[in-house]
Order: sequence, then C-alpha cells, then structure tokens
Amino acid sequence: MMLDRIFDHIEANRDSFIARVMDYVRHPSISAHDIGIRDVANLLCDHLSGLGFDAELVETPGHPFVLGTRMVDPAKPTVLLYGHYDVQPPDPLDEWISPPFEPALRDGRIWARGIGDNKGQHFAQLLAIESHLAVTGTLPCNVIFLLEGEEEIGSPQIADFIRTHLDRLGVADLVITSDGPLHESGAPIITFGVRGVASFELRCREASRDVHSGNFGGVVPNPIWTLVHLLATMKDADGRILVEGLTEPVIPPTNHEREAMARLPLDMPRVLADLGLQRLDAPLDRPYWDRLMFHPTLTINGFHGGYGGPGSKTVLPHEAVVKCDVRLVEPLTPDYVFDRLEAHVRAHAPGVEFIRQSGMLPSKTPMDSGFGPVLAQAIKVARGVDPLLYPTVGGSLPDYVFTKILNRPAFVIPYANADEANHAPNENLEVVRFIDGIRCGAAVLDRLGQMKP
Amino acid sequence: MMLDRIFDHIEANRDSFIARVMDYVRHPSISAHDIGIRDVANLLCDHLSGLGFDAELVETPGHPFVLGTRMVDPAKPTVLLYGHYDVQPPDPLDEWISPPFEPALRDGRIWARGIGDNKGQHFAQLLAIESHLAVTGTLPCNVIFLLEGEEEIGSPQIADFIRTHLDRLGVADLVITSDGPLHESGAPIITFGVRGVASFELRCREASRDVHSGNFGGVVPNPIWTLVHLLATMKDADGRILVEGLTEPVIPPTNHEREAMARLPLDMPRVLADLGLQRLDAPLDRPYWDRLMFHPTLTINGFHGGYGGPGSKTVLPHEAVVKCDVRLVEPLTPDYVFDRLEAHVRAHAPGVEFIRQSGMLPSKTPMDSGFGPVLAQAIKVARGVDPLLYPTVGGSLPDYVFTKILNRPAFVIPYANADEANHAPNENLEVVRFIDGIRCGAAVLDRLGQMKP
Repeated sequence: MMLDRIFDHIEANRDSFIARVMDYVRHPSISAHDIGIRDVANLLCDHLSGLGFDAELVETPGHPFVLGTRMVDPAKPTVLLYGHYDVQPPDPLDEWISPPFEPALRDGRIWARGIGDNKGQHFAQLLAIESHLAVTGTLPCNVIFLLEGEEEIGSPQIADFIRTHLDRLGVADLVITSDGPLHESGAPIITFGVRGVASFELRCREASRDVHSGNFGGVVPNPIWTLVHLLATMKDADGRILVEGLTEPVIPPTNHEREAMARLPLDMPRVLADLGLQRLDAPLDRPYWDRLMFHPTLTINGFHGGYGGPGSKTVLPHEAVVKCDVRLVEPLTPDYVFDRLEAHVRAHAPGVEFIRQSGMLPSKTPMDSGFGPVLAQAIKVARGVDPLLYPTVGGSLPDYVFTKILNRPAFVIPYANADEANHAPNENLEVVRFIDGIRCGAAVLDRLGQMKP
Repeated sequence: MMLDRIFDHIEANRDSFIARVMDYVRHPSISAHDIGIRDVANLLCDHLSGLGFDAELVETPGHPFVLGTRMVDPAKPTVLLYGHYDVQPPDPLDEWISPPFEPALRDGRIWARGIGDNKGQHFAQLLAIESHLAVTGTLPCNVIFLLEGEEEIGSPQIADFIRTHLDRLGVADLVITSDGPLHESGAPIITFGVRGVASFELRCREASRDVHSGNFGGVVPNPIWTLVHLLATMKDADGRILVEGLTEPVIPPTNHEREAMARLPLDMPRVLADLGLQRLDAPLDRPYWDRLMFHPTLTINGFHGGYGGPGSKTVLPHEAVVKCDVRLVEPLTPDYVFDRLEAHVRAHAPGVEFIRQSGMLPSKTPMDSGFGPVLAQAIKVARGVDPLLYPTVGGSLPDYVFTKILNRPAFVIPYANADEANHAPNENLEVVRFIDGIRCGAAVLDRLGQMKP
C-alpha cells in the first residue's frame, strides 16, 4: 500500500527526476584523467546529507569514496548500496551524436557519458530513497551508500578500503550493486556472482638474435615453437585445460544454480549469428551458460613473435610473447592459479619466463540466500515480471570485496538497457529503464524493511 | 708449369687488379631501386668483348643478363661461370665507415657495397681469364660467362632465362658460382648443393570481431588456440615433423656425402656461444651438419594475433596469422610440400586458410661427379690446402636452374671472407681472398682444360 504511494510519487515527479539526472551527468568525473572527480564527490556527499545521511568523503591514496549512512532502526536489515561516480573517458569524441557532457533527451533515451555506467543507476537509487522520504518521512530499512571514484581504472583501493572500514561497513546485511545491463529483452536480472580473473604472460627467448631460417633452420631453437608446444600442454584441442590442479578443485553448480541456469532464456541461433560463428568453442558438448558460469577458461589474449609484415621473411626469430587470462570460478584464487600455472611452465618449458600480472577473486552469493526471494519479489512488484536469476556471469567485478572481505551476500541488480553503449560513444539510458530503476530501488528498500528479523 | 707463369702474372699485377676491382665497384648497380643496372651491364659486356668473348646483353621482362661465350676447342670442357652484377641497397648509410660507393682500402681489405656479394668475386673470374689470355694468348677450356642483374631481388627471371636459352647454355658441361663466404677459418670450400624453400601462411578467423574474454571466454573459439593446436599437429616437441608425406620421401645422404660431412670442422662450443645458446634445437641427437644438410625444417617465421601492448588486456581475439617456411632437401619440391601441408591443414583445421607463398627447389650435384676432384685439385694448387667439401648448405639459392633445368653439375666455390658483411653496412673483401680468388679461377680453368675428354 505504502509502496503504491511511493510509485505514484515517482510517476508524478518523472519529468523532474529526468531533468535532475541529466543535470547530474552534465558534471564530468573521468577517473583516468582526474577530471571533475572531487567536484562530483562533493556534490554526492551534499546530496546524501540532504537526504539525512551521515555522509562524508573518505580519503584514500587514490580518489575519495563517498560514504553515507542512514540508520533508522537497528532491528531492520541494513543494505549497502554500492556504485561508482567515475566515468570512462569519452573518446572518440567525434563519434558522439550529441556531446558526452551535454546530456540530450531523444528517442526515449538520455544520451550522456556515465548515464548508464554508473551515474544514472545510482542516481535512481538516490531518487528511490528520496521518494520513500518524501512519502513516509523515513526509510523502511537502514541504508549505507558507498560510491567509488576509481571503478573505471580497476578499483585499486576498494579492497583496502573495505578492510580499513570493516567496523562501519560490517553493519550491512547485504550488498546491492546496480550496474551493468539488463537482459537484451529488457527483462530484469539478479546476479549472484562473477568469475574472477588471473592474467599472465609467457616470455620465451632462445638465441641471442634473430637468425636466417636457411643458415640456421634445424639448428637454432625457435621460441614460437617452444611456446606453441608449451601451450598445447596447457589446453588440448578438445578444450580441456590440462594444467594440473587448475580444474580439479572446481565446485560444481548447486541444484539451485542448475535450476536457475536452466530457466535462463537463450536464442542460440541469434547468439551465433551475432558473433559470426557456426559453432561455439570446444568442448562442443558443454551448455552455453555452463561455459560462462561454472568453468575456468584459459584464453590467449595475444601471441606475438617474429615477422608480421606483408609477404614472407625467412627469419628464425629469437623471442616471442604470449599473453593469457584465466577466468576463475570458486574456489580458485589468482595466487593458487598462478602457482599451478608456474609449476606447469617450469615442468614443461623451464626456459620460458612466467610473469604474473593482475588478478581478481571470483565471487558467489549462495542462490538460497534468504535475500534472494525478497529481492526477486521486490523486482516483480516494480517491474511486473519475475527477474532472471543468474548464478554468476562470465566477466569479473570486484564483488569479492563484499562476499570475501566484508563477508556478506552481494547481488547485482542492473537497471540499464542492454545497448547502453557503456565504455563507448553515445552511451545512453532508456527513460523507461531509469524510471523502472527508481521503482526497483524503492521496492527493494520496502521489501527489505518488511523482512522478519 | 703454365699455371705457375699465370700465378706470376697475377702477382705482378696485384696492385693494378686491386685498383681495377675498386674502380668496378665504384659503379652502383642496385636492382631493388633500379639504379645503375644498365650502365654496369654494358660495362661488363664491353669487358667480356675486350677479352675476346662473343658478348651481349640479353633482355628479359626484368633487368638484362650479360652473356658472353668464348669457345676455344670443342674437344675441351665448357664451364659456365655464373655470378650477379646487382648489389643490395646500401642502407643504413650512416653505419658505413667509408661510403658504400667510394671504395676504400684499409686493414688489408677493400670496403665497398658489392665487393663481396658478388662483384669482387666475378671480377676475380674475369681477371683469371684475362691472366690466361695475357700469358698464353688463349684459354685452356671453353667459357660461358653469365651475369644476372636481379639476384638480390630473388632471381625472378633466371628459370625462364635458362629455359629460353637452353641451346646456347646447354653446351656447358658444368656450372661454377663464386659467391658467398669461405669457411670462417679462411679455408676454401666447394659446395655441391643447397636446400630449397617453401614459404606459406596460415590465417585463422573465428568470430566476426574481438570480444571480451570474460563475457565470452569459454563460448567463442579463439583463433590463436586453433593455430596453436594445428601447429602442434605439424611438428612435435621432439622436433619431428608430423605432416604426412613431408619427410618420408627424403633421400638419405650417400656414403660420399656422409664422409664429406664427417670431415667438416666444427667448433661446437663456439657455435653455441656465438648464438647465445645452451643447446641446439630438437631433436637433440641429430649431428650439427646433418641438421643443415639432410633434413627439411618447419620454421615459424612469425605468429601474430591479439593484444601485444604493455600489461594485460582481457580480449578474446578473432583473427591470427602464422608465417612459416620449410627448407627442402631432395626430392622435395615446393608444390609437393605445399600439397602435403594443405592436405594436413584441411584435415586438422578445416577453417584455417592455407596460403602458398614463394618456393624454390633444392639442388644437389652428386659428390662423385667427375668434376669434383678436378676442382678440388685446382683449389689445392691455388690455395695450398684441400678445400672443404660441403654436400649441401642450409640456405637456398636458385642453383636448381643449373642442375634441374640446364641439367648440369653445379658447384659453388666462394672467394669471400666469412665476415664479408654482405647485405649489411661495411661490406668488405680481404685483399688476400680477392687475389686467392683470381688464382683459384685461373687454376680451375687450367685443370678443366687438362681433363681427358
């Protein structure tokens, strides 16, 4: 009943909310170039204070976090809403139809850098809070609002930040991130996990210089062959990863996860056509979602050595480099995977240098978390349809800081349309998705507030 | 007896010969840039005419050949002396101590572009002929002098040229090329063969665009993995070529060849140190000369696909290219090898495109050729030591046009020092090697003239 009045308030203020989010994204906040970061952080801090939050900028060695808390009732759940106020650089500028920091409204969408990723989405959360306050004078549950200023440059501070502020953040019962896209049909989504990642490099040098393939072919070892044969011992042509210990510990999906996966829609011919493919990658018998959710990968990101120009050149090259990443599923960690890979390389090609690069832990919230049905019900109330429940997604986000450092269930509930063009020119957010986001945010707070302690 | 008088003549004219070869290499003749080619061709033609040769420029679709014949006695052998009057471009110019076309004499060497490769060497042959004529008024055998103007750009016309002029060239009983370096000790060499070569490219494209390794890792096939697995089926880590039909027909070395190989000097620690290696390429149990002379190779000249910049990039690339060459030993031909490789690729990775590039047949003159001992004896007379007899060398030269089109035994008898720096700045020829070359040339003509019909 109360939620209906809040929905009415949202509908009544539709034009004003659109105008205000457009005003918000007019402020650049490009972390990579350190443009406008502090201005936008202060603006958000003031905004949260205005909503009755105990809000502050928390300094780090990088850009500040904006942290606001409004505790209304210690008996109610506390939700930590995470987002990021920094945006990608807008280049290439000449591909934008309207300028990235002059928000435009056309074709039912708002066009601006950051409108989808992530300013429009966390602004919807702020408006959901504001709508509750406007209608009821209070909030249905406790809220911690956490906004990062370095997500687009890899969140270098967030793990330390969470560790340092465990006392203040630890009161949260769950974490919700509204970022990323909805299903391409527009259907709502709740995501329970992400894969981790471990990036590494293999470097091989044989002779001290390139030599002539005629004068030395058959005599001088070839670093490209060395790497080819090493790689062939790491994954076979049937798609099986052969590195000892890398797949053995993998935790198979739970029944909940299998059931959720089976319910996910999939238009396979469309997926293949969109990618220009006749078939998926080996192993051929593995279901689509299974591939992205429950298995580690070993992707070669790049292989470079020797001559790459036009025609032929009879050179026997002396060095070559391979870059790879492994997507991690539970319980794999970057360090564990690096250790297994390094041991494998040492055993099979001791002359090849193994270089550890960046890593990020996977993250998973159990699908039988008590918050799952509450969030799903809230979204159904706001959107009129059941959300799709993703056990995990293929990509990597630093969700582990919430599930493994803060040690709380964490959910991703995106609000943006699938063609939001984040990280690209002409980033946009459909107005209907923005308003739906405010409704979802309001419904989530409402339903969390009604949970039995 | 007569030869001693000729050697005396060479010694008496030493300074004049040095001055004249320096004058010759002062004329640029850069085939790649079409600089000075016709001037030098005309100069050579006049030179041959002056020696009593029936000489002319023979036009081709490319640069002209200089062809001269002097028949002295139909009962005597006819030797075809082959060389090339074109030179490599002199870049990088700023690395030359003295300018490439301003020949300098210092440290007992002549420094100039082309002095080693090949002008100084065929000029020594011309002076050998001149010395015979000066002392005896005639030549001890019949001589065909053939100089090409496109060797440094891959001899695109020579096969057609030989085919077209089989009537005039077919009177030759043997072919001698004086090009390339002596043994690094300065010891003389007779080479009986060269490996051929077949260059090809493997191109693989999977998806229609690069995709994100998180969102699609495990779903989208990776062209680098496809090529890695294909390559691993072509040669194993033990160095065995696995392409069906590629090694089976290879003709093992004859007893003559084995014996010659066993006599070749080899300072293995020095070879390894020079290349910065701890070990030779697999297979580990194969003798050094065996590797270069009696086995085909499969060298990856280059492998390029995906990200190659600094750090890491979580990309799943959609295309990659591998360039390879196979060095050919008898009886392999480029077409045969291309067919076997293409069939292999079609069977193991049908989506990979196989692109035939350039090819050159191997060439071998039997080591029991009757000319072998005659040439060896001539070189011993001129140099005072027995020549090293190479059954074949690792690199590729278009010698097959003589052994397979002209159908005559062909020998390479180089005159240049091993550090001649051909194809590089500061190309040079030791004066003692140049004079030795004239002596060798003279002795070879003398000994051929004494052969019993």
